[in-house]
Amino acid sequence: MNTLIKNINEVLTLEAARKKDGRNIQPEDSSIKKYVSLIHNDKKILWIGRLSEIPAEYSIDKEIDLEGHVMTPEIVDSHTHLVFGGDRSFEYTLRLNGADYQEIANAGGGILSSMEKTKAASESELFDKGVERVLRLKSYGVGTIEIKSGYGLTLESERKLTHVISRLKDHFKDSIQIKNTFMAAHAVPKSFDSSKRYLEEIVFPLFKEFAKEGVIDFVDVFHEEGYFSLEDCENLINLARELKIPFKMHADEFNDNGGAKFAATNGAISADHLLAASNDGINALAKSDTVATLLPGTAFFLGKPLPNARKMLDAGCKVALASDYNPGSCHCDNLLLIASIAAKNLGLNFTELWSSITLNAAAALMLENQGSIEVGMKPRFSIFECESLDQITYSWGRNFSK
Amino acid sequence: MNTLIKNINEVLTLEAARKKDGRNIQPEDSSIKKYVSLIHNDKKILWIGRLSEIPAEYSIDKEIDLEGHVMTPEIVDSHTHLVFGGDRSFEYTLRLNGADYQEIANAGGGILSSMEKTKAASESELFDKGVERVLRLKSYGVGTIEIKSGYGLTLESERKLTHVISRLKDHFKDSIQIKNTFMAAHAVPKSFDSSKRYLEEIVFPLFKEFAKEGVIDFVDVFHEEGYFSLEDCENLINLARELKIPFKMHADEFNDNGGAKFAATNGAISADHLLAASNDGINALAKSDTVATLLPGTAFFLGKPLPNARKMLDAGCKVALASDYNPGSCHCDNLLLIASIAAKNLGLNFTELWSSITLNAAAALMLENQGSIEVGMKPRFSIFECESLDQITYSWGRNFSK
Repeated sequence: MNTLIKNINEVLTLEAARKKDGRNIQPEDSSIKKYVSLIHNDKKILWIGRLSEIPAEYSIDKEIDLEGHVMTPEIVDSHTHLVFGGDRSFEYTLRLNGADYQEIANAGGGILSSMEKTKAASESELFDKGVERVLRLKSYGVGTIEIKSGYGLTLESERKLTHVISRLKDHFKDSIQIKNTFMAAHAVPKSFDSSKRYLEEIVFPLFKEFAKEGVIDFVDVFHEEGYFSLEDCENLINLARELKIPFKMHADEFNDNGGAKFAATNGAISADHLLAASNDGINALAKSDTVATLLPGTAFFLGKPLPNARKMLDAGCKVALASDYNPGSCHCDNLLLIASIAAKNLGLNFTELWSSITLNAAAALMLENQGSIEVGMKPRFSIFECESLDQITYSWGRNFSK
Repeated sequence: MNTLIKNINEVLTLEAARKKDGRNIQPEDSSIKKYVSLIHNDKKILWIGRLSEIPAEYSIDKEIDLEGHVMTPEIVDSHTHLVFGGDRSFEYTLRLNGADYQEIANAGGGILSSMEKTKAASESELFDKGVERVLRLKSYGVGTIEIKSGYGLTLESERKLTHVISRLKDHFKDSIQIKNTFMAAHAVPKSFDSSKRYLEEIVFPLFKEFAKEGVIDFVDVFHEEGYFSLEDCENLINLARELKIPFKMHADEFNDNGGAKFAATNGAISADHLLAASNDGINALAKSDTVATLLPGTAFFLGKPLPNARKMLDAGCKVALASDYNPGSCHCDNLLLIASIAAKNLGLNFTELWSSITLNAAAALMLENQGSIEVGMKPRFSIFECESLDQITYSWGRNFSK
């Protein structure tokens, strides 16, 4: 079935950015096409051109008139933790009022409270909350969402989370593409005396179980002092290779732990956070295919300095931005808003800004034939009810998404 | 006519903050009341208490059930430039791509382009755009909006702008309170060889005309090198005193020009921007009733450092936040969003955050009996469809406004 989308004022194709593998992107690599129409057959884009010049070979089964609105490659949120129980809004107030982590924990907050509330919630409660949250992201124009487990940390509770994400993936399969990331290696529960024992008793058995069931797309780990060591990561990677599940990593968030370099040299799909990544780590990322995923919303939310995006971009890294939407360190679910606000402060040019939430975010999820609008690519776009691409990022806080 | 608003989960009354004149506000000065109802007669709040304890003396003509939602004093945006012609969205893209002011001006952008497009727009076009923009602010929960003229800078064009603001004020009089600020002293047009001559030929005659017509609430001036000098400000103030129009000032935005001190010692209602204000200026503000109005959205939008709010708060200043919504330096119209994002980064506690966009913003517009929710105050509130006050500022980018 062929669909014609006509009367598009501007299409951000990102063709040149795609040809440069999402690196060293210049403003003109946006490859904007003006006043065009597009034909796709649901699987791929067949043609882009002037409405008056549609080749006779394409029969049109359906027409959509965009009435002059604009189109970008689909916005991809490649890093969220959006399935969780409980309400930690009071913590943000406590933090504004000067409370530290210990005081928040004493008041019943912190990641432990998310674990307890997630454990206490039924699968259907978590699913319903998940549906509500996915729909909200969709309302902002996001079309693909990665969701990590990791607020369970017990066999039963992590199983519940991964199943909820799997159900969300199935529920939304005709509208939103969801990627299921197994991240039981999010923290080491207090009941375990070592990260190694937790991995062996909880993470690895579940990982094998889910890989066998075919329900997970990625595995992720929080590499940091007091969390999981490089040795732990190595053990996890070895199993991931065996199970043929691609590997992602929370790297160098608080300290430079050599995480970026490790991720890059071990073929991680992405290294995320990178607030403290060293030059060495950045150079290793630049030489690799590992996507450097930055989460500026978290820096804003915690009142911390922003990551040094410019250094990574200039070194030739493939840089993505994601929301990190989660109950503790970034309760902002609007990636386009975060990217629009962060861009000027991170020193991103217009095309880097858009590539970071479309083309390179797609790479961070290994989405093939997605991230640019060209013949042969999948027809995955975001559509905005405004007159120009410029208006979208200029109008902070407005939602033009159609 | 008495209205009962019942079933309010939480009311941010700010009673204690109001009693402290909006200064040195501690977290507990939020004076939150839980599970209450409220009676008002459109002019003032008559009673606040438990639903089961309504005094017999009040007949109820109308009931509103808030179904557990929450209430704050009305959000007041005390500094906007929302009446302008043209679309400068392309400039933000150019700025992301590294263009400086001169390159933007060469590309047809900058404040001159707003002047030209505003001049070219008809009064009804500007009015229609204004209506659209005011309604958008209303959709975020803003109930009072100050609007400045200042993109005209000719007799005819400034007259048009002030009349548009006046028409908006009248159009919305039953739903949104609009304050009309005359700010022809926004910049010196190139056709004038001195600011003094521009004031004498354009600003002063218009000021007298509008004061006589009774259409303006405030007068404002951009005090900065290359704009208007302290001597200019003094001449303007002298006329303002004569005409009995309160005086506001854009002070110390780019450089420390002694603007904050001048504003404080000359009885300005507010001094706005203050990015470069000296300790001397801050101390003078703290000793005065002049509200220190900060515009953090502008700092974010321009990629500049944030103002030093903490220093002003600790010195005892009355601090307000406003959006500065305008086509060039801050095209973000959502004050609550800006305040929520800026609070953590400015070091504001929860009660300072809310006071800055309600109580102290009301003071920046001389709104009597407004800014706290207490018996005797005007029934001006913002209502949010969520379960707790905490959720509003925790959920960046979500609009709970009812």
